[in-house]
Amino acid sequence: MAKSNGLRLNMSMLSDFYEFTMSNGFFQGKMRNKTAYFDVFFRKNPDNGGFSIMAGLEQVIEYINNLKFTKEDIEYLRGKKMFDEEFLKYLENFRFTGDVWAVPEGTPIFPGEPILTVRGNVIEAQLLETMILLTLNHQSLIATKTNRIVRAAQGRTVMEFGARRAQGTDAANYGTRAAYIGGATSSSNTIIDRDYGVPASGTMAHSWVQLFDSEYEAFYEYAKIYPSSCVLLVDTYNVLKSGIPNAIRVFNEVIVPSGNRPIAIRLDSGDITYLSRRARRMLDEAGFSDCKIVASNSLDEYVIRDMLLQGAQIDSFGVGERLITAKSDPVFGCVYKLVAAEDDDGNIIPKIKISENVSKITTPHFKKLYRLFERETDKAIADVVTLHDEVIDDTKPYELFDPAITWKRKTIDNFYAVELLNRIYDKGKLVYKCPTLKEIQENCQSEVEKLWDEVKRFENPHNYYVDLSQKLWDVKDELIEKYKFVL
Amino acid sequence: MAKSNGLRLNMSMLSDFYEFTMSNGFFQGKMRNKTAYFDVFFRKNPDNGGFSIMAGLEQVIEYINNLKFTKEDIEYLRGKKMFDEEFLKYLENFRFTGDVWAVPEGTPIFPGEPILTVRGNVIEAQLLETMILLTLNHQSLIATKTNRIVRAAQGRTVMEFGARRAQGTDAANYGTRAAYIGGATSSSNTIIDRDYGVPASGTMAHSWVQLFDSEYEAFYEYAKIYPSSCVLLVDTYNVLKSGIPNAIRVFNEVIVPSGNRPIAIRLDSGDITYLSRRARRMLDEAGFSDCKIVASNSLDEYVIRDMLLQGAQIDSFGVGERLITAKSDPVFGCVYKLVAAEDDDGNIIPKIKISENVSKITTPHFKKLYRLFERETDKAIADVVTLHDEVIDDTKPYELFDPAITWKRKTIDNFYAVELLNRIYDKGKLVYKCPTLKEIQENCQSEVEKLWDEVKRFENPHNYYVDLSQKLWDVKDELIEKYKFVL
Repeated sequence: MAKSNGLRLNMSMLSDFYEFTMSNGFFQGKMRNKTAYFDVFFRKNPDNGGFSIMAGLEQVIEYINNLKFTKEDIEYLRGKKMFDEEFLKYLENFRFTGDVWAVPEGTPIFPGEPILTVRGNVIEAQLLETMILLTLNHQSLIATKTNRIVRAAQGRTVMEFGARRAQGTDAANYGTRAAYIGGATSSSNTIIDRDYGVPASGTMAHSWVQLFDSEYEAFYEYAKIYPSSCVLLVDTYNVLKSGIPNAIRVFNEVIVPSGNRPIAIRLDSGDITYLSRRARRMLDEAGFSDCKIVASNSLDEYVIRDMLLQGAQIDSFGVGERLITAKSDPVFGCVYKLVAAEDDDGNIIPKIKISENVSKITTPHFKKLYRLFERETDKAIADVVTLHDEVIDDTKPYELFDPAITWKRKTIDNFYAVELLNRIYDKGKLVYKCPTLKEIQENCQSEVEKLWDEVKRFENPHNYYVDLSQKLWDVKDELIEKYKFVL
Repeated sequence: MAKSNGLRLNMSMLSDFYEFTMSNGFFQGKMRNKTAYFDVFFRKNPDNGGFSIMAGLEQVIEYINNLKFTKEDIEYLRGKKMFDEEFLKYLENFRFTGDVWAVPEGTPIFPGEPILTVRGNVIEAQLLETMILLTLNHQSLIATKTNRIVRAAQGRTVMEFGARRAQGTDAANYGTRAAYIGGATSSSNTIIDRDYGVPASGTMAHSWVQLFDSEYEAFYEYAKIYPSSCVLLVDTYNVLKSGIPNAIRVFNEVIVPSGNRPIAIRLDSGDITYLSRRARRMLDEAGFSDCKIVASNSLDEYVIRDMLLQGAQIDSFGVGERLITAKSDPVFGCVYKLVAAEDDDGNIIPKIKISENVSKITTPHFKKLYRLFERETDKAIADVVTLHDEVIDDTKPYELFDPAITWKRKTIDNFYAVELLNRIYDKGKLVYKCPTLKEIQENCQSEVEKLWDEVKRFENPHNYYVDLSQKLWDVKDELIEKYKFVL
């Protein structure tokens, strides 16, 4: 958990209104004591990528832990004149008493597989929907986008600079957290350094330079105050004619005599590829080959890839609006779907959502998620979704098959299977210890390394398989048969 | 102000780290007592639209009112070992003592004009940057997007449904507020009904229907509980073969006998244009021509326009992810630029940011913003940015000219001029009374009506003029001359 988990107030009422109308309906009718199973899954990777990154679980846990309805909330609901008094009394004492399983943060995730499962009384499980989706959708979106940018930067550091263009405070703060999970090394956002230890970085804006009578004077005064951490923004007037020459002069007049070395210059406009190459030569010739070059200004994975292809001399990328909003594809589409419910005898009855659009038909039942890795290389072969009581025995060969084109079958051996859905809550009790943010970042890096390069391409990535076990496929097929009359 | 303004905690540390490094630098050097002027402006309307909508001012005010640094904040900064002890003491007692002017919320705004101006001690003014930008950028983005969607809906209601896909809690909550300003009539987000009075709406998800043994039973039970507000989701299995027939049966068996009328059915998948036309006929033939049809599912202004062109029979649109993230163009690009500073004698010295990219050269000086309206039609003719001490006399003809192509000149008469920058803070004291959210929504609607249709087109809108007064143009031209050597 974060040092402070106080960035959010009680968000119990940040909920779609229908969660309340339905819950009140369940409460008043025959569903009151029903146990239901909901899966969270998504249908498409952002930016047509080959995978996504799970993020936001810690904030889901904070939400569930803090979930309660205040007197003010109840009063408000009473005022709507739609809710049963008994139901409002029930809400007064509400707390979540069900079970949750989830994929750990930082793990690559794929379309169609359950990344979080809730089992519980249907009223409790229904009321969690909006905030679980909002939280996982937001942070997984930004972690996924950042991981793309970090991979494009090929080992150079990526700094998150987007607070001013974020979609609100939460987007800035938890967006920074998610960016760190995806591989960003630091952020401009101070609050996330204070609360999560994501190192804050930043030096000067154009306003600093403009305020002084000359760029030289502005650099001189800054260097005097920050001799050991001097980064100068060199594009207020003209990078090559003014910015770099003034920076070199100040490095020689202030930084070197103080016993320090300059840290970096920053380019924030113009043709940065060209300017960085010229700037690199000027700095090298002046004896500052250790002075790094930082670039910012509307960067993303595509721009960075092209800059590096063209020989840009950049050591560090400051990435703002296109990261913090995931500009090229700003919606992560997790949904929360009913997959099963228990009958009066406690039997689990699988439930399906039928659609004329075949890809929108849900996979029913209470399930497990396995990832199979090649023993020799540690590379991920495929994910397999099974029934909740199935075990994949990785000491024996296992037959995979395509759930859409079922004659496509392949038997694998020499693999090991890892279960990805960890138990988070057991009858309302938190039984999961959240890793530190640093551990989550490391988990992300090591698990992404286990994906084949073909899955990591930006264009036409290989379609990683998410298969169903034979038993689960049979359950789904039977339910589709049952409802085929409506298609 | 909102009933509760408690949706956000103290966000004083949600600030780019360089605001602190610069402020500490100002404090230690010769700029400590400098009075500076910053303008907020943007360079491009989202979605290549003809105008944008100002939103977020009330939250900027809440931020400034609450801006203080806690002991914990100071301790954290001290730990960075970069900040002067005197500066940290200064922050302990920090409060904003400067002046702010801003365009009222709901007002159409255009690229290149100041929409908010801060005058104050440079340290105070600098420290406001990140949160002012974040707040105005986010809410103006969503208000602008929603207004486009509302105009596409041609008088039909637009409901905000996006919480689950919003980029964090603040994006959901203040996004809903901004959507209401832009013209949405209600929202699925309950918290914003409680705190801002934006009516919450919503009835059932697919999970309700799936839980019962049949769709008919699900509808029957729902109608029994909510006979006077019955909206049924009809696409869980098959809209035309199952959903509508079951809805009609339940309307006849439960709603009508209870003395009520059905409110609506909701379509959430499939070809909604086609389904809505068939559904309309089925409902009409069954005697429910007063039952409305609500549509949702990845809608935006373009989809809605096309649906209506093709004769869709929709009374109300529920718009989610594409509204709440402004998916097609999810960044609003306000910047915060130094435009002037006072010398030791209190003279205002204009400041400019030069760029090789001409459109990025800033307009210097402390300014006013006028909107000129045609007396006969009340339609807006142009905006004119002037020096702070200029007055446009609308009893006399006024010469407008294009600030880029200066020979393009036009003299207008029979107009009236309205100053758009309202005084918000006077030496740190709030002197502005925020309108209610309803008043802001009405302001938006009436001010958008004053724009010519040509400016409101989605494709190739007419470029509304934002001109400079001759005096301001002269100041800018002189500064460009001064810095031309660097271009």
